[in-house]
Amino acid sequence: MKMPLEGLVILDLTRVLAGPFATMMLSDMGARVIKVENPAGGDDSRAFAPMLNGESAYFMSINRGKESVAINLKDPKGKELLLELVKKVDVLVENFKPGTMDKLGLGYEVLSQVNPRLIYAASSGFGQYGPYSHLPAYDLIIQGMGGLQSITGPDPEHPTKVGSSMADILAGIFTVIGILAALRAREVTGLGQMVDVAMLDCLVATLENAIARYVVTGSVPRPAGNDHPSIAPFATFESADGFVNIAAGNDSLWRKLCDALGIGELAEDSRFLTNSDRLANWPELKAIINEHTRTKPTDHWVKVLREAQVPCGPINTVDRVMADPHVLARDMIVSLVHPVAGELKVPGVPIKFSKTPGEIKGPAPLLGQHTRSVLQEMLGLDQEAIDELKEKGAIA
Amino acid sequence: MKMPLEGLVILDLTRVLAGPFATMMLSDMGARVIKVENPAGGDDSRAFAPMLNGESAYFMSINRGKESVAINLKDPKGKELLLELVKKVDVLVENFKPGTMDKLGLGYEVLSQVNPRLIYAASSGFGQYGPYSHLPAYDLIIQGMGGLQSITGPDPEHPTKVGSSMADILAGIFTVIGILAALRAREVTGLGQMVDVAMLDCLVATLENAIARYVVTGSVPRPAGNDHPSIAPFATFESADGFVNIAAGNDSLWRKLCDALGIGELAEDSRFLTNSDRLANWPELKAIINEHTRTKPTDHWVKVLREAQVPCGPINTVDRVMADPHVLARDMIVSLVHPVAGELKVPGVPIKFSKTPGEIKGPAPLLGQHTRSVLQEMLGLDQEAIDELKEKGAIA
Repeated sequence: MKMPLEGLVILDLTRVLAGPFATMMLSDMGARVIKVENPAGGDDSRAFAPMLNGESAYFMSINRGKESVAINLKDPKGKELLLELVKKVDVLVENFKPGTMDKLGLGYEVLSQVNPRLIYAASSGFGQYGPYSHLPAYDLIIQGMGGLQSITGPDPEHPTKVGSSMADILAGIFTVIGILAALRAREVTGLGQMVDVAMLDCLVATLENAIARYVVTGSVPRPAGNDHPSIAPFATFESADGFVNIAAGNDSLWRKLCDALGIGELAEDSRFLTNSDRLANWPELKAIINEHTRTKPTDHWVKVLREAQVPCGPINTVDRVMADPHVLARDMIVSLVHPVAGELKVPGVPIKFSKTPGEIKGPAPLLGQHTRSVLQEMLGLDQEAIDELKEKGAIA
Repeated sequence: MKMPLEGLVILDLTRVLAGPFATMMLSDMGARVIKVENPAGGDDSRAFAPMLNGESAYFMSINRGKESVAINLKDPKGKELLLELVKKVDVLVENFKPGTMDKLGLGYEVLSQVNPRLIYAASSGFGQYGPYSHLPAYDLIIQGMGGLQSITGPDPEHPTKVGSSMADILAGIFTVIGILAALRAREVTGLGQMVDVAMLDCLVATLENAIARYVVTGSVPRPAGNDHPSIAPFATFESADGFVNIAAGNDSLWRKLCDALGIGELAEDSRFLTNSDRLANWPELKAIINEHTRTKPTDHWVKVLREAQVPCGPINTVDRVMADPHVLARDMIVSLVHPVAGELKVPGVPIKFSKTPGEIKGPAPLLGQHTRSVLQEMLGLDQEAIDELKEKGAIA
């Protein structure tokens, strides 16, 4: 066995982000992912800019290592093909608006009759039940409703969304966990089940100590910029060419920090002796530290503070992340060669297995690239039958 | 079978956030989690404010449903006990600084000799190898180094950390995936393995389209506040009492939005006809919409826009999230009763399994609450032997 999910077959009806992110992770760990796409253009994100030789970088990035089968699910013949494929797979994943699969006649009730061992995972904005389940959801809307936006931002008056689509991504990741846990249950019970993951639920589950703090104190958490609510100095400071993050979590680190900044006398200042002192006089202290950190570039401070063993780091922009020696040493940036787009760099596999390492299996598929091979191999259809289905518009 | 991970036994050496978040999820899905704590105070987060009758709300929130066994791993007898326990479990999870377990004589090499089926999961800031693996890591430092902070914030000049400890949380979640995938591999190979998850890797893996955009365009992504880079209007607007998120993703939604705001004529304005027009004249358009949305409270707009089927939502603060009817309908806020602290509300289980639903198994343990029962049951020690170990300071 080379990869941990070898042998697992996934029928992937997902589009855009949350679902494709989930099936990307499954593919990177060795599962075979068969992406079923609408023949009329396929996954919406195939049209998302920016393009590389006409191919969407966004699509290629999160659909690497999958096979593409173009089937029209609104066509009766296409529906039949899907039902036949469902019999041959372990898992089906979709991220349609709730109710869509039922309307197609392909809801969980129907599919579980066809294959009782099927694990059916559905990822959506609000989930399959509850008063908002029918509402349209975008990442921004969910970040707002789930509380994450209300605790992120430079100050209490400016709630700010996270710069990546964190609600979608978290839903994708939790969907993977749901699928793997349901597979384990199936080994005991012999039966599949439905796994329902809502973006909103995922945000509530990851609010972390914001809930605990509110429940106990009654005080509503607000955006606090880059400052730590209860430790100082533990914040972002200005440098000559940008910023430096410094996390001096205790009195000993505080003294080391003062020495490294060349302001050793500050450690003896009665305003800043203990963490409580430093919190009480935080605006003053922050100004003093900034005055010093502003005199030299970030790289200087990172070097000096690391030598002094004070936790610190730069705010890396994406270009710097992609060139970071540690990131590269851990294979977190990988080059793919796509037959049309050419070379593309994408994030690597963040889980390092010592015996069955994950691996990006290949580039993203062209629309319908594997229609023929999958229908031949999995359903035993011959060339003639496939050509006929194609002529009738059931596949492409 | 009631819960999907029933029967699985986890030895949990984790502290603070990333590790405990991972084992919380495993417990919520039915695994038995035995938390091994230092007899001198236990998990550091037991001391984190705010407190409820002297018990940390933070600790109680993410350590629910676990058992606590207090063992001194620096004591030779304590070490022996741990090695005996390792023989009886499926998984060991730790989030020490890399090298700590080796120094204790309890590294993966040693433990895998004792139990070749053991899955050993280690979560850390920078991972078990690579040039930074020895560096101290806090969530802020990793959010900075991993690029997330560089794309979050109100404007390009103010990179802002995410308000929750997203680097820790993502590492915890990816650790769960690593464990479940390694369990699947073990079913085929019969062997355990080491799973190495670094917070920094997890952030790189979730940068999403920021990497694709940079790779293709060469332009470095920066914080863009609450505005969408390529769709308008798709942003946060001001209301009479706060904010409202509106996501009008196409021309038809744009017209619906204008009608709902009572400014139908704007849809015919040549400056705003197409998405490209609206992006080109975005500052102007944003000002006009804000002028209207500022006249009424958020609840008004959410009601009106939902009726008009325009995707929208409030920016809920944590108190509102916890009172939201949809969040409650999906059991995403759950009450626990702790023997000392009393009632505590915590986030629920975000993965909804139709046949084997997850469940919070109980409150967080007191330090060493299960030392006796676990050593009796799992290792067959009698009262006398346990009392002796206690007197010698190996356990508590």
